[in-house]
Order: sequence, then structure tokens, then C-alpha cells
Amino acid sequence: MKRISIYDSTLRDGAQAQGISYSVEDKLKIVRRLDALGVDYIEAGNPGSNPKDLEFFERVKALSLGHSRLIAFGATRKVGVDVADDSNVMSLLRAGTSAVAIFGKSWDYQVTEILRTTLDENLRMIGDTIRYLKQQGKEVVYDAEHFFDGYKANADYALQTLTAAAEAGADCLCLCDTNGGTFPGEIFDVTARVKALFPVTIGIHCHNDCELAVANSIMAVQAGATQVQGTLNGIGERCGNANLCSIIPNLQLKLGFDCIAAASMEQLTSVARAVSDIANMTHNEKAAYVGGDAFAHKGGMHIDAVVKNPVSYEHIDPERVGNARRTLISEVAGRSMLMTRINAVDPTLGKDAPETQKIVARLKELEHEGYQFETAESSFELVVRKLLGKFKPFFELKEFKVVVVEPSVNGVNSSATIRISVGEQEEVSSAEGDGPVNALDKAVRKALERFYPEISEIRLTDYKVRVLDSDQATAARVRVLIESTDHRENWTTIGVSTDIIDASWRALVDSIEYKLMREQERKVV
Amino acid sequence: MKRISIYDSTLRDGAQAQGISYSVEDKLKIVRRLDALGVDYIEAGNPGSNPKDLEFFERVKALSLGHSRLIAFGATRKVGVDVADDSNVMSLLRAGTSAVAIFGKSWDYQVTEILRTTLDENLRMIGDTIRYLKQQGKEVVYDAEHFFDGYKANADYALQTLTAAAEAGADCLCLCDTNGGTFPGEIFDVTARVKALFPVTIGIHCHNDCELAVANSIMAVQAGATQVQGTLNGIGERCGNANLCSIIPNLQLKLGFDCIAAASMEQLTSVARAVSDIANMTHNEKAAYVGGDAFAHKGGMHIDAVVKNPVSYEHIDPERVGNARRTLISEVAGRSMLMTRINAVDPTLGKDAPETQKIVARLKELEHEGYQFETAESSFELVVRKLLGKFKPFFELKEFKVVVVEPSVNGVNSSATIRISVGEQEEVSSAEGDGPVNALDKAVRKALERFYPEISEIRLTDYKVRVLDSDQATAARVRVLIESTDHRENWTTIGVSTDIIDASWRALVDSIEYKLMREQERKVV
Repeated sequence: MKRISIYDSTLRDGAQAQGISYSVEDKLKIVRRLDALGVDYIEAGNPGSNPKDLEFFERVKALSLGHSRLIAFGATRKVGVDVADDSNVMSLLRAGTSAVAIFGKSWDYQVTEILRTTLDENLRMIGDTIRYLKQQGKEVVYDAEHFFDGYKANADYALQTLTAAAEAGADCLCLCDTNGGTFPGEIFDVTARVKALFPVTIGIHCHNDCELAVANSIMAVQAGATQVQGTLNGIGERCGNANLCSIIPNLQLKLGFDCIAAASMEQLTSVARAVSDIANMTHNEKAAYVGGDAFAHKGGMHIDAVVKNPVSYEHIDPERVGNARRTLISEVAGRSMLMTRINAVDPTLGKDAPETQKIVARLKELEHEGYQFETAESSFELVVRKLLGKFKPFFELKEFKVVVVEPSVNGVNSSATIRISVGEQEEVSSAEGDGPVNALDKAVRKALERFYPEISEIRLTDYKVRVLDSDQATAARVRVLIESTDHRENWTTIGVSTDIIDASWRALVDSIEYKLMREQERKVV
Repeated sequence: MKRISIYDSTLRDGAQAQGISYSVEDKLKIVRRLDALGVDYIEAGNPGSNPKDLEFFERVKALSLGHSRLIAFGATRKVGVDVADDSNVMSLLRAGTSAVAIFGKSWDYQVTEILRTTLDENLRMIGDTIRYLKQQGKEVVYDAEHFFDGYKANADYALQTLTAAAEAGADCLCLCDTNGGTFPGEIFDVTARVKALFPVTIGIHCHNDCELAVANSIMAVQAGATQVQGTLNGIGERCGNANLCSIIPNLQLKLGFDCIAAASMEQLTSVARAVSDIANMTHNEKAAYVGGDAFAHKGGMHIDAVVKNPVSYEHIDPERVGNARRTLISEVAGRSMLMTRINAVDPTLGKDAPETQKIVARLKELEHEGYQFETAESSFELVVRKLLGKFKPFFELKEFKVVVVEPSVNGVNSSATIRISVGEQEEVSSAEGDGPVNALDKAVRKALERFYPEISEIRLTDYKVRVLDSDQATAARVRVLIESTDHRENWTTIGVSTDIIDASWRALVDSIEYKLMREQERKVV
């Protein structure tokens, strides 16, 4: 199996993405995850352009990495400056990594119009910088910026820049599609030509501006590149960088290349999710391999076929990348999947049991009202348990009243008062909030915490509203989905009503009931 | 320029995506957008498996489409059934479209293990169904499900299924990578072989499970396919379908194929956003070509270079797809689109007028708060008029109070009281409703009707809610879109707030103000 080295730039090029701003702590956490995953290189910062990165390189020395090598990234020396006097190159050395990456210009137009220097001086800038860093004992990766655009404009000059880097001792020549505008066939042809000319490692660095970065990276490998640069979840400037979460399994599970340890592959989904969390980005649930929907099946016919044999609608076994199959409950879903879910609550029930009939009838009713249990699996479980008498209510709502006023008073426009009972005891509480639902949420928690302190562990992480039959305008029914977590588990609940507050209330109650039920089960076990 | 026909399945295969559930109204709106964009085929439903789709096909007949042909989609006849007795095939005919798509099995394993019939019967199912539909005068697209997996398992049988379809008269053989597990090189080779064997149109239908669907579609075209199936924004089951928003500009702007009218290309971004809105999905801002970040520049060095010459870090001019560079102009739309809209209010304003600058600055502020004017053009017009002093307020809100109680009293749980002034006069009124927004809507109309009887003509036809920053849970900001009509005109307005009632109120006020403004203009003219 041919070995492909994986070069991660989540912390450097990924930091160019809109909305990304890592703390030093964030970066250290991501380094640990990347090392556990087993990538070969972690490009972790640009100390010349970002002084905060020097603090990171200082602190990262305390981590003992099992597999990955850290890389500090920077530019070639400036026009007309001696390398040893170039402040960026000096910052690069100060990072203290054994390997460095240097980027330089390949495109004649960029040299003369953006750098505003001569083509010859650019060649010297590349050669001088790499030669100097090799003399300091560094492993040097040379990133040829805009290589493919440069090659199309002036192939001869683009190749001269690579020659300058190779002759100075670069260990790897990495070809960059900086603007992301190149197509798979071109990537293949140009990479194959470069591979034939230079006896060093060839790398590939793609951007996703044409939604082709994964394909382009793979084509380059098929043309002879043996280092792939990218980021986890494809984060990066504009449309993002080449997504290593797709490239690694594509190369290793589908094409037989060797990228990371086989055991690490099963961590891929959890590493991808952790990085989304740390970077404070919404994880892309539609992502190949590592998205929550990647192996989710909805159509009844598809679900029946997947139950017969997963290969019907799955290109790989989801467990190989640490993901899982999900079958979504919906009006089009098959009976067999429904039974799997019902049997999770009561394994003794058969397809034709009267209890099963009752559940199916109730589900149809609820779906007719606008409920949808595709994602709201916890509400589904509560419906089944209630129908089977396997749920004992934890509290009862006596009444609530929510008031919204305009103009707001002292910056607050919403308040809620609620009365509930737990067994024989009643509790009344009030709260103000950002909007009526927030006020109601706070009031019910306040009322219940006395009886169930574990409620304080619930954190609502997502709140979605969908208007059904929206042509009924403001009298339309709305469907509310709430996602909750307690750092042990995530769960999703649903409520439907013509009144958004009532719909939110139902989803909120389900979320609380689900939490209390799980806590009770834990105590029993 | 070689012509490639674009076949959109946003409404059919796209509806398999998790969380998608279109109303008939939603579907009609999307059809109008797709037709304006100029796709050749709109696969709009599966009347056999979803009876609601028949209602859609009935209603869509009232639209007169300028370019697109509608397609009803269904399966080959069932095992051992005569075509004329097959209920699915009959539903397909009932849809009344001039073109239909039929899918059948190509993979021997799927025939024997999932369909549980013989390989010969499967060939007859394909042939019989297509022959019957051709006799009914239909244009027939044959979707060869799992074609690439089938070809790898048993090329001979996979080709026999195509022969059965071609001999029965299929107008197009569409090769499907149903599980999304095939690689660009394989797609090219297999498509080229099929193209050489069959003298009919060859189509390609890819899924994105390896993040390769766009590349695979393009490779198939380069191998001779002339029909591309996909969905807008790539929506679809699991990781989605091939994304037409990337494929169309890739083929037309970069590779020189002819897909849609050149003028329509500039609508691509706004159509993509409108479809996200109608489907109530968060638009992917990282999307190639049509994402808000696709031409956003963050790194200072990059911005400087882009200012010197955009080709430095942009693979195409964003205005060619109706998108905009983010560092220089408003996020809402390209400068030319913005000027068109501003000039609709005041034709004398130039690009560099101080009033224009003021409008752009205000738009950026509003967009930062979560406003989006892609569909809410009437709110946009009101913003511009107010800034230019071309709007005289019709009324002023003094206060409102909305109360929601549970349990409801006599079946009513929401009431609203409102006080407004018109000139020197004040008016107070109250109303009950289905939910707080409905109550407020009724109350404000009651209060205003005395002054502006034409308000009774306003009918709210659509009401949508999107939660922004949804990780803030019940304290999240919400964006409300309201569509209104008075049987002369339709208009859309927007409101954003952390409080859903406040957001709804803002959209409602805009709707009323827009109506009154139009009435006033009519009287003046």
C-alpha cells in the first residue's frame, strides 16, 4: 500500500475562514486531536504575520506528540533583503519546529504586479530562503502559491520557481490551487508532469471554490503526489480548503492508499465533531463520512432495502469512520424501521400486536397534525412509552400566563408566570426573558429545580421553528424542534401548535421529561 | 458551444433530504424560480408514492412556463404485473406531464436480493414500462439506479438493462451513482463506454457521499454525457445530490458548455438563496459561487492583492453569478443589482452619491443584525424610501400588550391590545387569536381600518420563521418573513428580533406600510 502523508492546516489556513478565531487553548486542544488521529504534519501557525502564534509554539512544546510533526509557516524573504535580516524568517526560526513551510510565488503576473519585483529576484527569494532554512537543519516544505494558474499563464516560469526550490534543498514541492479554480483533469496532467521532472516529494494543496477540492486532491495523488494538504471539515477562507475528513477515507478505504493508522479511522467522526465544537462552528450534518445525515435514510423503500442489506444505499459501513446508520421516522418510512424503534422500548412487541397498532394509529394522527419524528427521536420515545404505560409523569402543568409588551420596560418585554404540581405539592414561579419563549423556559426551570435539581444540567443547544401550512399566515400551525444536551447525551424534541408559545412549551416539556426519565433509569440501574 | 441539458430534481430527489417537507405552494414557487433560471427539466414529484403530488401536478398546469418542461417520476412496473394494471404507472400518467422519468434496477444483486425477482423479469419490467409510456406519447428519461455499482459487479448485465431501455424507445439513458461511492476516473471510463454503445442522450445523476458529486458530473460530461441531473444547493438525502449551483457555472463559465441563458446566470445566487428560504433551510454561506463567503476576503494580504487585481484570489468575477465581493460592497447583492433597486426609488442617484453610501451603510448594519433582503424586496424598498425621506408614516405605535394563557379560556389562549395614533387621533383595540401573532395581527387591523379601509384587502399568504444563531436556544434571534397579497400585487416583508412577537410585528408593519404607500401612489397617479 502506497503511503500518503497527511498535512493538516486547520490551525493555519483554516484560521483564514470567516468567523474563525482560535484561542491558544483551542489550538492546543486541536493539536492533541490531530495527533491522536495520526496526521503526519500539523501546520499550526504563521509566527511572522501573527505574533500570538509565537506564544502557541512556546506552549505546544510541553505536549509530547505521539505521531505528528509541527510546522511553522511563513513567506520567502522580502524583496531585496538578506535572509538573515528578514524578520518573518527569524520569527519562523523562533517557533522552534523541526519542520517549516515556506510559500512563494509561481505566477509571473503575481511577481511583477503584486510583489512588484523581477522574475529573477523572485527565484532568488525562493532559493535563498530555503537554502538558509536547510542550513539551520530544518525539514522544508515549499508551497508553490497559485501554481496551477501560474502554470497555465507561463509554464516555463512556474517550473523555474520549482527548480529554484528543489536546487536549494526543499524536501517537498507542494503545488497550490490557491484560487480554487482548477479542474480535475488539469490537476492530474500538471501534477504528473511535475512528478516526472522532480525527484522529491510532491504535495497538493487545493481550495474548494468550484466544489472540486476533494476530487482535485485525489487526482493529484493518482498522478503521483504523496503529500496532501487540507483541513478538517474543509474549513478555510471563502469556500474552504480541501476537506481531509473526505480525502482520508476516500484514499484509504476506497482507493487502498495508506494515510493514518487503521484504528484511528474509527475516530474520524468524533475528531471532526470535536473540531467543529472547538472552533465554535455548526457541524455540517450533510458532510460526507462525518455528518450526522451521511448515513441517514428517509424514503420507506430505501429503509426497507437498507434493512435487508446496507450495501443497497450505503457506500461504506458507517462504523469504519466512527459514524452510525440512522433511519428517520417519517410518513414515507417503512414498517420494519418503526418496529426497530418500538422494540427498543419493548422487545416483546410483534408487528401485529394490538399495542403496535395503537402506536401506529397515534403516530399517523400526530403526523397529520404536523409532527415529524425524523429527528425528534426523544419525543417519539416518549409517545411510545406513554402509550405503553411505561412513563410516570414527573409534574403537571396547572397554568401559565405569558405577557409581551411594547415598548419594553427597563429593556425587558416578556415575562412568564407558571404554576405546576409535583405529587401533592404546588409551585408558582415567574421569570423575565428575551422574548416570550425564553421567559417561559426560565420560569418552568425555576419551578422544577426544587424538585429535580438535575434539571440545571440541561442546556438547550438549538431551537428551530418551521411554519406549516404557511398560507394560513399568522394563524398557521408551527412546528418547534428543540435540541438539548447534558454533556452525556444529546436529545431532540418536538411540539406543534397554531400558537408558537404552546408549540415551544410542548417541545420544552418533552425535553425535560426525557432528561428526568433517563436520570431515573440511571438510578435504577 | 456544446449544449448540456440541465435536469433539476430539487422538488423530487431533494425532498428526500432530512428536514425538507414542501407544501404545494412551496413547490409552485420553486418551479417559477427554476423556470426563470432556465433549467430544461423540472422533476417535480413522484405521484405514485406520494398522492399529495397529484394535487401539485393539477395546480401547476395553471402556470405557463417559459422554458422548463415538467417531469413526473416513478418506478418501472411491479414484478409480474401488467403495465396497464400498475397503479404507480397509472398515477404517473395522471400527472399529465409531457415527459416522465422511470427508474429501474441495473445491479444484478439488487434485482435478485431486494426486488427478489429474476434478471430476465427485471429487463421486461424496464422494457414494458418504457414501451407503454412511449405509446402514450411521452418523452421518457430512463434512470438506471445504481448503474456504476452494477457495472462494477456485472458489467454485462448492467449494459443489458440499458439495452432494454433503449430498445423500448427511452429518449435518455441516465446513469445514476445512487450510493455516491464512485470516483471521477471510473465515472469517466464507464460513461465513455456507454456513450460509445448507445446512440441516445446520456445523462448523469450523482450523489455526494464521497464529496465528489460535482467532479463526477463534470467528468461524465467530459466523457460525453449531455444531460446533468442535480438539485439546487445540492439538497438531497444523506450528503445530498450533485449541486447544480456549482455544476452550471463550472460547465458554462469555466469549460465553455452551454447550459442556461447567459443573462440567467446572473440570477444564480438569488435563485439559490430563494430556494433555501422557501425550503426553510439555512443557506450554506461557504457554498461555491452562491455562498455569502464565496468571494469574501479576510487575510489583509489577500485583500490588498484583490484590491490591486481581483484575479489574485478570485477564480471568476462574482457578478457573473449574481454574487458579490464581500470586502468592497454590501452583502446583499452585487453593486449593479443594488443600484437597480435604489434607482427604482430614485433614478437620479449615482453609484457614488452620498445618499447611496448612506443606504449601503444602513444595509450592512441591518444585515449584521440578521436581516436579509433577497426575498424581502418590499422591506428593502421601505428602508431606501425612509432613508431618502420619501416615506411619510401612516400611523404610530403607542403600545401593545399580548397575553397567552394555558389552559385556554373558551378555546382561546391569546389576546392582544394595541394603541396607535394617526395624526392627532388615537385608537385602541383588542382581539383574540390563534396564537399571539394572530391576535396582534387582528388587533392592529381593527385599529387601522377606521382610517384606512383599504387595509381589509390585505391577505397574508405566507408566514415563515427562521431561527438565527440557533445555538442561543430560546434566546436566539429570529427572522420572520411575511408574504402578503391584495390580488393586485404580492409583496414580502421581514422583521428580525430576539422576540418572535416583535419580529413578527416588524414584518407586519412593513406589510401594512407597503400597502398604504402603494394605494397612495395610485391615488396620486
